[in-house]
Amino acid sequence: MSTPSSVGETGERALIELIRTRVPAAPPWVALGIGDDAAVVEPERGTQDVLTTDALVDGVHFDRRFTPPDAIGHRALSANLSDLAAMGAKPRVALLSVLLPADLPVSDFTAIIDGILALAAAHKVSLVGGNITRTPGPLSIDITAVGSVRPRRVLARAGARPGDDVWVSGSIGAAAAGLASLKTGPWDGRAPSAMRACEEAYLRPTPRVRLGLLLGRNRAASACVDLSDGLADGLHQLAGASNVGITVDANEIPLPDDARAWFSGHGQDPLTAALQGGDDYELLFTVGARTRGRFRGVLRHAGDVRLRRIGVVTKSTAVILTSAGGDQPVPAGYEHFR
Amino acid sequence: MSTPSSVGETGERALIELIRTRVPAAPPWVALGIGDDAAVVEPERGTQDVLTTDALVDGVHFDRRFTPPDAIGHRALSANLSDLAAMGAKPRVALLSVLLPADLPVSDFTAIIDGILALAAAHKVSLVGGNITRTPGPLSIDITAVGSVRPRRVLARAGARPGDDVWVSGSIGAAAAGLASLKTGPWDGRAPSAMRACEEAYLRPTPRVRLGLLLGRNRAASACVDLSDGLADGLHQLAGASNVGITVDANEIPLPDDARAWFSGHGQDPLTAALQGGDDYELLFTVGARTRGRFRGVLRHAGDVRLRRIGVVTKSTAVILTSAGGDQPVPAGYEHFR
Repeated sequence: MSTPSSVGETGERALIELIRTRVPAAPPWVALGIGDDAAVVEPERGTQDVLTTDALVDGVHFDRRFTPPDAIGHRALSANLSDLAAMGAKPRVALLSVLLPADLPVSDFTAIIDGILALAAAHKVSLVGGNITRTPGPLSIDITAVGSVRPRRVLARAGARPGDDVWVSGSIGAAAAGLASLKTGPWDGRAPSAMRACEEAYLRPTPRVRLGLLLGRNRAASACVDLSDGLADGLHQLAGASNVGITVDANEIPLPDDARAWFSGHGQDPLTAALQGGDDYELLFTVGARTRGRFRGVLRHAGDVRLRRIGVVTKSTAVILTSAGGDQPVPAGYEHFR
Repeated sequence: MSTPSSVGETGERALIELIRTRVPAAPPWVALGIGDDAAVVEPERGTQDVLTTDALVDGVHFDRRFTPPDAIGHRALSANLSDLAAMGAKPRVALLSVLLPADLPVSDFTAIIDGILALAAAHKVSLVGGNITRTPGPLSIDITAVGSVRPRRVLARAGARPGDDVWVSGSIGAAAAGLASLKTGPWDGRAPSAMRACEEAYLRPTPRVRLGLLLGRNRAASACVDLSDGLADGLHQLAGASNVGITVDANEIPLPDDARAWFSGHGQDPLTAALQGGDDYELLFTVGARTRGRFRGVLRHAGDVRLRRIGVVTKSTAVILTSAGGDQPVPAGYEHFR
C-alpha cells in the first residue's frame, strides 16, 4: 500500500499550483491575483477599505482529531467574514497564509482550501494571494480579508447610547456546546444526532455578512461587535468602547434547548457556559430610539436569521445580567492565553 | 530573583495594549485603527490596492538563538515591504498576526513589536490591526501589508521582452553568508567583524521601497520581482512569468568579497551559494531599449542603492549563467519545503 503524499513531499510550488487550479476566475476589479509578488485590486468607488486578520491554530482553535479539513477552512474564513460583517462591510478579497507541518496529507490540504473556497464563493470573495510555509509546529491558518464600506455606513464598537436596545443574531452557546460534544463524544442517554446542530454551529458557522450589510446600509445600529469570543466578551467590548453599561435579561438570551441540556447534563450552568463560550459568529448590536423605524426594515429583510432583543444600554458602565434570581455582573469573556 | 514575565502570564488583552501604546498616531486616512473588529482605511484617490502577506516561523525563517527580537520584527515587515517594492507600490498599512508560545518573555515580544514599528515608521507605514494568539508551536509572525499604486505604474513579473537588460539592486549572497556565519560562528582566521555587514544584511535587510517607486513612477522597468527567495528563484520566476529566457553574466553578479570569501572558506562554490541562498531583499528587474532614457533618471535618483546590469533577456526560455568556464543552466531556486 502506498502512503498518501504529504505536503512536505509535494513542495511549496506544487501546492500553490493546487490552489491556483481551484480558484475560480477573478472578477474584473482584481487586476492581478495569485502568482505575482503581491495582488493588485481596484477599490470600489466611494468606499473605504475594511481590513481584518485572524489565525486558527491546531490544538488551540480547532483540533484535527474532530474537525474535518473542510471545516477548518470554513471556520478560518468565517472568523474574518464575521469581523467584516460587524463593521457593515461587504467582503471582497482574502489572502491566505498557511503554516503546514510537513506530514500533513495533501488531501487534507486541498480539503482545507476547498472549505475556504466554498465559503468564499458563497460570499463572492476572491482569494487573491497568500503564502505557504512549513512549520515544525501545528497547522495554522491565517486569513486576511478586505471588504468595502461607505464612510457613513461603518458599524463601530463605539456609538451605543443609554436607552438603546441591545440585539443579538442567531443563537448563543450552540457552538460551545457543539465543541464540548465533539470533544467528549455524545452525552449519555442522548442520541448523537441531538447535538448535531450544535456541532455544526461549531464546525461550519454562518458569518452574518448580509445582516451586517443591512444594518450598515440602513444606518440602523449605533454600535456593533461580532461574538467570535463569546457573548460576555462582546458585551464588555461594546460597553467599554462606547463608555456605557448594558443590562441583559437572562431569559432573552437565545440559548438553544440542546445546548442548554448539554451543559446541564455535564454539571455546568447553561447561561454561564453560553456567555463565556466562544465561537458564536453572531452579531451583537445596539439600536437607538431614533433609528427603530429603520431597524424594522432590517427585521423585515433579515430572512431566516433570528434577531432577539436581549437588553438595554445604561448610563452606568456596569454590564449586568438580570434574572429571577436577581442581578449579577456578566463575567469577563474568554481570554485566549489563560 | 523574579523570572521575567511571559506572554502567557500577561494575556492577550494586555499584549494588545502594549502594542497600542507603542503605535504612533495614525494619519488622517486611517478612519479606524487598532481596537475594533476591523480597521477602516481610506484608499488613495486614483490608485489600486496592492496586498501581500508573508509569515516567518522560528526554526524555519529565523532562529531565536541568533536572531535578536528586534531583527525578527524588522525581517517580518521587510519581507512584505520588499513584495510591495517589487510591484512599484507605496506601502501604507500593515496588519500583524502573531502566534506566541506561552513562555515567550514579554520583553522579547515588545522588542519584536519595536522592530516592526521602527521599520514601519521609516516607511510611513501604519500598523492598523492584527491578531494575537497562543501556539503550542514555534513563534510565528505573519504580516499583511497593503500599499497603493497607480494603475499604469504596476511592476508585474510578466512583461520582460527579448533584448531587455536585466538589472539587480544592492548585493547578492550577503544575507546567505551572514546567516551561515550567524549559525556557525566566525570562520577560522577571520575576525568576527569581517562578517558583520553580511550578518546585518540577513538580520536587518533594507527593502527597496524607494527604488520600486522610482521604477514604477518612471515606467522604467518592463518586469520586476523581489529576491527574498534568492537570485536563482527570481530569475526563473521573472523568465517564467514573461515567457522568455535570461542570460546572466556570472562576473556581473554583485557578490560582496566577504560573502565570497566565506563561501570559499567553507567549501562552497560562492556563485552557486549566492544564487541559491535566499533572504536578499533586493529587486531584479528588466529595462527595455525604449525606456533606457527613463531608466537613466532612476539611476540618477537611486541614491546609495547600487544597481548592476547582470544580463539580458533572450527569446529562448532557458535561464543561463555565462562565465569563463562556459555556459550552464541557473539552478532552481530555494524551495521552502525541501
